[in-house]
Amino acid sequence: MAAIEYKLLHVDKQTGARLGEVKTPHGTFQTPIFMPVGTQATVKTMSPEDLEKVGAQIILANNYHLWLRPGEEIVKEAGGLHKFMNWNHPILTDSGGFQAFSLTEHVKFNEEGISFKSHLSGEPLFLSPEKAIQVENDLGADIIMSLDMLTDFHNDYAEMQKAVNRTTRWAERGLKAHKNPDTQALFGIVQGGGYEDLRKQSARDLVSLDFPGYSIGGLSVGETKEEMNQVLDYTVPELPENKPRYLMGVGTPDALIDGVIRGIDMFDCVLPTRIARNGTVMTSEGRLVIKNAAYARDFGPLDKNCDCYTCRNYSRAYIRHLLKAKESFGIHLTSYHNLYFLLDLMKQVREAIKNDRLADFRAEFFESYGYNSKHMNF
Amino acid sequence: MAAIEYKLLHVDKQTGARLGEVKTPHGTFQTPIFMPVGTQATVKTMSPEDLEKVGAQIILANNYHLWLRPGEEIVKEAGGLHKFMNWNHPILTDSGGFQAFSLTEHVKFNEEGISFKSHLSGEPLFLSPEKAIQVENDLGADIIMSLDMLTDFHNDYAEMQKAVNRTTRWAERGLKAHKNPDTQALFGIVQGGGYEDLRKQSARDLVSLDFPGYSIGGLSVGETKEEMNQVLDYTVPELPENKPRYLMGVGTPDALIDGVIRGIDMFDCVLPTRIARNGTVMTSEGRLVIKNAAYARDFGPLDKNCDCYTCRNYSRAYIRHLLKAKESFGIHLTSYHNLYFLLDLMKQVREAIKNDRLADFRAEFFESYGYNSKHMNF
Ligand SMILES: [Zn+2]
Ligand SMILES: [Zn+2]
Repeated sequence: MAAIEYKLLHVDKQTGARLGEVKTPHGTFQTPIFMPVGTQATVKTMSPEDLEKVGAQIILANNYHLWLRPGEEIVKEAGGLHKFMNWNHPILTDSGGFQAFSLTEHVKFNEEGISFKSHLSGEPLFLSPEKAIQVENDLGADIIMSLDMLTDFHNDYAEMQKAVNRTTRWAERGLKAHKNPDTQALFGIVQGGGYEDLRKQSARDLVSLDFPGYSIGGLSVGETKEEMNQVLDYTVPELPENKPRYLMGVGTPDALIDGVIRGIDMFDCVLPTRIARNGTVMTSEGRLVIKNAAYARDFGPLDKNCDCYTCRNYSRAYIRHLLKAKESFGIHLTSYHNLYFLLDLMKQVREAIKNDRLADFRAEFFESYGYNSKHMNF
Repeated sequence: MAAIEYKLLHVDKQTGARLGEVKTPHGTFQTPIFMPVGTQATVKTMSPEDLEKVGAQIILANNYHLWLRPGEEIVKEAGGLHKFMNWNHPILTDSGGFQAFSLTEHVKFNEEGISFKSHLSGEPLFLSPEKAIQVENDLGADIIMSLDMLTDFHNDYAEMQKAVNRTTRWAERGLKAHKNPDTQALFGIVQGGGYEDLRKQSARDLVSLDFPGYSIGGLSVGETKEEMNQVLDYTVPELPENKPRYLMGVGTPDALIDGVIRGIDMFDCVLPTRIARNGTVMTSEGRLVIKNAAYARDFGPLDKNCDCYTCRNYSRAYIRHLLKAKESFGIHLTSYHNLYFLLDLMKQVREAIKNDRLADFRAEFFESYGYNSKHMNF
């Protein structure tokens, strides 16, 4: 039996966006969905109960970080990641390749895998497709990722072609190494940068291996939003209708909506919690930097149209004070609001699909959030 | 009408300890009580709802910190400290003298007040008895403190006598400056170090000014526990039976119990949250340093006899991982447990008084916590 099951519930008549649900061993989540990131087996400053309250249905954890600390054996001994971190809903883990590539030094790729030095201890480490799967098997997330070959979006064609082919070989090795196909769904990751034929080839090669779901990687790495949307335009149609599609590392409101319109079901990004720590919040009228002096005597909520815990109980002035005073409760309040905002946005997106009006919703949201004005960068 | 009302409910037949309650404009709290410290208008990592769940009935905030940041005018404009920080139960503020004395540089005392430089901006500031009360009036806590003259416990007699006399004059000036006696109860602070006649004189002078409550200051500043208990032995009997008595800055389990036995009703200390940040927790079997390698694979709770949120849901191994990974949720979990532990201890103490068995309870607790063994420092 497959670990997960995707059910397509409705297709938006305006855009073709999909409303669906994914059944996993730890419950069902609605799609399209945004997944908060719990890098080190905790979504920064948020309790599992807080995550439920902001509407999180599935969260992500990082294979690389948990492999290094506390180590996957400890998580396994604890009864797996769900029990370890007290989250009894779906979890997705990535392979660790992205962190090995971006956080460490002395990174070398070869056909066997990736060698690098630990960003914590400096010790030499080696991540192969099989090792990535072994760690993910020990952690026990509901959805897990193949190790993929990372490249620059603008690499030349020959380089990109090599990366795509290696990614397929690694995906196949991961499939073979995977010990728990009945309880953990392994996704293959489509690569290919901005080359249409390579993206299509990558998707077809992976689809021929029959994964229970597909990720699109190598995006949100510096390319323009137009470039990202173009890639989705020609890649998503290659993926089967009866499997979930996950766009990795994307979390700005516009990219979420535009990804959904192009047939994406799942997204993750550290953005809402990372900007929250710097005092930036997303509101129905665009983003707001709460540390600005302008808010020192502003006794209104972060977002007057938001009914989250933060906005119902605390003023901009208080939150600004907490952030200036470096009190972690301030970061908790902004993180809570930002996660609520994105998860509520996805709820509204699902509602719009159900009512066949996602194009209208997009136009309304882009106008109120400020995407139609000039000085907007997310 | 007085801002607060103390009601003596029962006196323990074994020790003479008092069970009582204090009615304030923001509700009634049971005594003896421990008050968590919310230095900057937040008890570090704890939401107001968390504070309610750990059993906090009254919390403390620091006048000095809020005067400097965000400034008492902003808190006043927000509708006062209760509304600003979303805590609709009793609050106590100190005068700011202790922080002015201990956190800053270039401190000079004279009859007018204390001059020093801000620990944030370096700007010269001056705290007089009148200024302390004005800031406390603007913050609007239910119980507020006079500015007192701080001294070393072991100062010579002549110095101590001067400090005691100045403290009385400052208390009188504070009384005169106090604008809200109907809604904020101003306490006088007994000083006198370890000199019995000076402590008694200080208490009598303040009692003659008829404050709605009395604090005992200048303790827990490096003297031995025997010295502290001796001071309480001869000072508390000078205080009226119908007013609450507050021992400032004390929060170790033994000092709490021994203070209650000597007639103290209220305590505060940063200890439970400060040690929580360093990974030390108080348990029914003594304290435990959770970062120790011994707990890396310990899947039991912090304290097997504790039924707090932390102990019901998380293992020592997980909490250790979070602290090693510098995740603030780990500090939240240890802070939560430590506050629960001390507040629950005080609940047990109140129960023991009610049942006329506080001496027995003390003996049992000291044995299980490890105070009777040699290597214990709190
Ligand atoms: Zn909100
Ligand atoms: Zn506990």
